[in-house]
Amino acid sequence: MQFHTEYLTFHTAKHREYINITPEVEKALRKSGIQEGMVLVSAMHITAGVWVNDAEDGLIADIDEWLEQLAPFRQDYRHHYTGETNGDSHLKSLLVHHQVIVPVTKGRLDFGPWQQIYYAEFDGQRSKRVIIKVMGE
Amino acid sequence: MQFHTEYLTFHTAKHREYINITPEVEKALRKSGIQEGMVLVSAMHITAGVWVNDAEDGLIADIDEWLEQLAPFRQDYRHHYTGETNGDSHLKSLLVHHQVIVPVTKGRLDFGPWQQIYYAEFDGQRSKRVIIKVMGE
Amino acid sequence: MQFHTEYLTFHTAKHREYINITPEVEKALRKSGIQEGMVLVSAMHITAGVWVNDAEDGLIADIDEWLEQLAPFRQDYRHHYTGETNGDSHLKSLLVHHQVIVPVTKGRLDFGPWQQIYYAEFDGQRSKRVIIKVMGE
Repeated sequence: MQFHTEYLTFHTAKHREYINITPEVEKALRKSGIQEGMVLVSAMHITAGVWVNDAEDGLIADIDEWLEQLAPFRQDYRHHYTGETNGDSHLKSLLVHHQVIVPVTKGRLDFGPWQQIYYAEFDGQRSKRVIIKVMGE
Repeated sequence: MQFHTEYLTFHTAKHREYINITPEVEKALRKSGIQEGMVLVSAMHITAGVWVNDAEDGLIADIDEWLEQLAPFRQDYRHHYTGETNGDSHLKSLLVHHQVIVPVTKGRLDFGPWQQIYYAEFDGQRSKRVIIKVMGE
Repeated sequence: MQFHTEYLTFHTAKHREYINITPEVEKALRKSGIQEGMVLVSAMHITAGVWVNDAEDGLIADIDEWLEQLAPFRQDYRHHYTGETNGDSHLKSLLVHHQVIVPVTKGRLDFGPWQQIYYAEFDGQRSKRVIIKVMGE
């Protein structure tokens, strides 16, 4: 079994931002030479998410608005007694999950027609990392 | 390490539908001959989910109602400017996640007493696929 | 490829409880001797979750309150016709997901600075299990 591990670093301009990282994951897969197996793509921070969905700007804006409704910024989270102001970012991360597994078949991401991998930054403007680990043969 | 990959195709009669696919996953596992490892079960579309929960019709109806409350159909999603009408289906997919990993021990799905694998269709009445990838030894 | 499987059992004092299980997962990893690969940590019950987030008591209380808002206890879930009273526990489990994959690099959980693994009990006061499966080389 072979392993290939890479780390992506993001430093977004905005507090919340959604970045299509499919090309980076494909690049890591090619570098690994792995033909069969899977790729784990996982946020290394607890105020970010990783999901597989559509690369459509209108939908991305819908998702952002929806997440703000379900897990809104509020002053009065207990977490803010620590001096933090990002309670909502943690909740948003829990809601969308922080990782995906992409199956690899014949050396390619075995995706349906519209699947794209997104990094979802919920507390940006500082350095955050994602791990890509390709595992297989 | 061995790999065994299968694809299930669904074409549901209703727009939203919930299908217990545990027997199909068990069948794929048996065919693989794998004794130790895991099975990735992952929707290949971005308007569907895969979860592990109870095979109880009342609960399934509760989940469906709850998802419609948290991620309702609306006319005015930005995504609909593309001509689509399934913005809510994408949000429902994000909410429940599109994949699970089932551990395999001694040739069996290593599940607790009530765990069953469901395919959750949020935008049906057309062909949609799920990948099952068994990995192990 | 090597595999090492362990099961944790919980019997919480309260109906809902959140337990940091990172030390148990690290112990299982050490016992396995695996240097490269991953750990699957997955609830074996359908009224519990597993997540990766912060070990901060204020945040844990925020999460608990937030989950009760999004997936509240109600008398009138259809699931309760079976005699159960835990419909909300199933919904909470779906919302946060029941499993995580932790990457393993150089014999350690390859985590960012604040990532901790939690078992989230949504219907406790009885025995519940989590599977830890370490896979790699």
